[in-house]
Amino acid sequence: VPATRALAVELKCSRNTVLAAYEQLLSEGYLEGRHGSGTYVSRVLPDTLLAVSESMGRPRAPMPRDSALADPNRARVSHRGAVLAALARERRAPGLAFVPGVPETALFPFDVWGRLLGRVWRRPPGVLLRHGDPGGHRPLREAIARHLGAVRALRCGWRQVLVTTGAQQALDLVARVLLEPGEAVWLEEPGYPGLRGPLVGAGQRAVPVPVDAEGLSVVEGLRRAPGARLAVVTPSHQYPLGIVMSLARRIELLDWAYGTGAWILEDDYDSEYRYAGRPLAALQGLDADRAPGAGRVIYVGTFSKVLFPSLRLGYLVVPPDLAEPMTRARAALDDHPGAPVQPVLAAFLEDGHFAAHVRRMRALYAGRQAALVAALRRRLEGLLDAAPDDSGLHLVARLAPDLAARMDDRAASARAARAGIAAPALSSYFTTEPAMQGLLLGYAAVPESGMAASVERLAAALEAPARAGPA
Amino acid sequence: VPATRALAVELKCSRNTVLAAYEQLLSEGYLEGRHGSGTYVSRVLPDTLLAVSESMGRPRAPMPRDSALADPNRARVSHRGAVLAALARERRAPGLAFVPGVPETALFPFDVWGRLLGRVWRRPPGVLLRHGDPGGHRPLREAIARHLGAVRALRCGWRQVLVTTGAQQALDLVARVLLEPGEAVWLEEPGYPGLRGPLVGAGQRAVPVPVDAEGLSVVEGLRRAPGARLAVVTPSHQYPLGIVMSLARRIELLDWAYGTGAWILEDDYDSEYRYAGRPLAALQGLDADRAPGAGRVIYVGTFSKVLFPSLRLGYLVVPPDLAEPMTRARAALDDHPGAPVQPVLAAFLEDGHFAAHVRRMRALYAGRQAALVAALRRRLEGLLDAAPDDSGLHLVARLAPDLAARMDDRAASARAARAGIAAPALSSYFTTEPAMQGLLLGYAAVPESGMAASVERLAAALEAPARAGPA
Repeated sequence: VPATRALAVELKCSRNTVLAAYEQLLSEGYLEGRHGSGTYVSRVLPDTLLAVSESMGRPRAPMPRDSALADPNRARVSHRGAVLAALARERRAPGLAFVPGVPETALFPFDVWGRLLGRVWRRPPGVLLRHGDPGGHRPLREAIARHLGAVRALRCGWRQVLVTTGAQQALDLVARVLLEPGEAVWLEEPGYPGLRGPLVGAGQRAVPVPVDAEGLSVVEGLRRAPGARLAVVTPSHQYPLGIVMSLARRIELLDWAYGTGAWILEDDYDSEYRYAGRPLAALQGLDADRAPGAGRVIYVGTFSKVLFPSLRLGYLVVPPDLAEPMTRARAALDDHPGAPVQPVLAAFLEDGHFAAHVRRMRALYAGRQAALVAALRRRLEGLLDAAPDDSGLHLVARLAPDLAARMDDRAASARAARAGIAAPALSSYFTTEPAMQGLLLGYAAVPESGMAASVERLAAALEAPARAGPA
Repeated sequence: VPATRALAVELKCSRNTVLAAYEQLLSEGYLEGRHGSGTYVSRVLPDTLLAVSESMGRPRAPMPRDSALADPNRARVSHRGAVLAALARERRAPGLAFVPGVPETALFPFDVWGRLLGRVWRRPPGVLLRHGDPGGHRPLREAIARHLGAVRALRCGWRQVLVTTGAQQALDLVARVLLEPGEAVWLEEPGYPGLRGPLVGAGQRAVPVPVDAEGLSVVEGLRRAPGARLAVVTPSHQYPLGIVMSLARRIELLDWAYGTGAWILEDDYDSEYRYAGRPLAALQGLDADRAPGAGRVIYVGTFSKVLFPSLRLGYLVVPPDLAEPMTRARAALDDHPGAPVQPVLAAFLEDGHFAAHVRRMRALYAGRQAALVAALRRRLEGLLDAAPDDSGLHLVARLAPDLAARMDDRAASARAARAGIAAPALSSYFTTEPAMQGLLLGYAAVPESGMAASVERLAAALEAPARAGPA
């Protein structure tokens, strides 16, 4: 598509108008940003999914014309549905190095987990079988409140803890209970792509807001969507860049929320995996000091990356005065979280198995990160620049000038993929034009003994001469 | 509120305009219908939930006025959130006779279930630990497709089966993928109250459509919301009345869907519990004959009432051409269903434990229903009229003229509740003025030996002289 300035001149309108239109089309999946060369029409358009029956070559149903009440030729999937379907991300082949966000599951104590499952479910108490509390099983909520108080200095009672399937359901609930349809939400740019689905599904406008060295830029947010009602942030360890939000920025963000009556969703993903230094306290604590009982920060976390990704169990911590309406709305939308895992996870937390597992994995992951950094320096110096990170499960390796001169990060990622290495392009975490180029390297599921070999394959893929055909 | 005719005269507008306004207010929870005496302002208004911080008597957060970008005095919960919160139903005390929809859980083979859990989870295969398929675990989807083919003559491949947490998540997904915000949905009147939450959450307009002796009235639907895009029906056994939708009505409904390009959600709840006669085939089968590959019926079912309510596991069966967009949209909204139960339920189905449990429970429930009918006839003849029902887990006992002359069904239900008997009023399943009066009596969790005693308590409660204070 034309550059914004050129189009503004051509259409005789302000550049802000063009920018707003482009952002809308980006947020709906019609456009996508690519490095260096501006904005392009998306390769997969939402509308191709609108016409599923044609695209699958099946005959349309016979549609008698005796009723003219609605248009029978309407596409099978709604516009909203097509946008949602287009947002689903492709799954990466399992078992490859370096898929980000995948923990080491081989060392999870399934003997303990299986024993607890059997203990609970061979003779379950009646209370576990009936319709449960829409906020979740009380012993689990109590265990989560204690756990977060101990490790993240959160101050919350068990009623403030709502059990969800994960961050997506949490965001869906927050948007639908606190926001009206059409209201804007600030999302970190770059950021976690999985947040867009729940926002589109709730009818919100997702507005990308750049992250600078201190975290999400409130000034930029106000420029791009001054009326936004919610900011979704990762202050402890920005996803995917790893930036820690400065205290000044935290206060600026809280001031914005209190000043405008907006909300902050604090995603504290991977907070268990900190290898060095003391973490800043969670925003939730700052907020609870500021407005006891009626704060503006909602905290979200998950157990799926400490236990195993298919667990699908996370939680929200809401200000005290939101506990009742949020729990009631959850009941109206999806009844209550299932019982099968909740009492088992409660016991796993209370009996100390969770803390012991985190301690073991923290040491393991610290070793794996060090091995990755060493292997990258040994083999990819001059092509990829990766610094150690105090926390998390992946590193961001920036393309060094030499490599960047030859290819962008999507091309580099595609080369890696052909060599059996999953290293997503940093630019794929941007919805607008990417401000930087790099590869995400998840190391948590890669044994130290295999690190050098995987890095070697990556290096060979990046160094190979360009093939004929698309890079 | 004034009667519709009177208000139409007073405002000099058509009665249809007044009816439409009342229906909108009813659907948003501002009004509620009560028997015989028209429409009233709701006892719990959505707006009381809008102002949660005030209502809880906590101080509001200090709100600096340095930013005038939004209204900081705005209520804490959005209008949408308040409507959702107001829709949550009160929980009934567990363990009481005759809570509808509660199965007997004491006889569930938890020894088998616990053994299967242990077998899967003490040494889980790696594929179970990674991010799963957004449509669900393939062996479970295959087992569900086989099961539905065998018992309900459904014709579907495993890709058409999507695992959900239950009917609510199923409806939420259907609405968001197939409908645009604001579009109308026909709901059976009376009907299952739990469906309103997902529809409000998706931005749909829920329009109650009366059920007659043949099922949902298409003619009335067209009168009340001619542009509706979805009808949610229970053709096998209307909830809560138990009416079986006639073949003529099924064809009329399908004709409507094909003629207008609308959708039908067929909720086949409790289809496992049929005690006599042959069921009509599911609508899904009729639809699959009519338009192979691109039908208009989505089928929904759940395992939570055969196994135990807190299981929270159900499924959708979608036309073949919707399998891909629906699965992708589910991935964007809530990733994938959790792994902990899916492989266990697959084994439970495949190894024949499910069929054996249904056979045992069918005999048990048939006996309990017969005992309830006998006890009602013996003790409540002339007060409540209840006929046997070929299927389901509850009976609807209509108020006989003698009792109806003394009280409405909400008063009767309140008397029962004070005597420790949960018998919800039939009128509470209406959103507009109830067309009939009765009590729902769930018998599945009441042992035959205790049936007479529970009916005796109910009878005594209904026969007692009116107390001082509200009935």
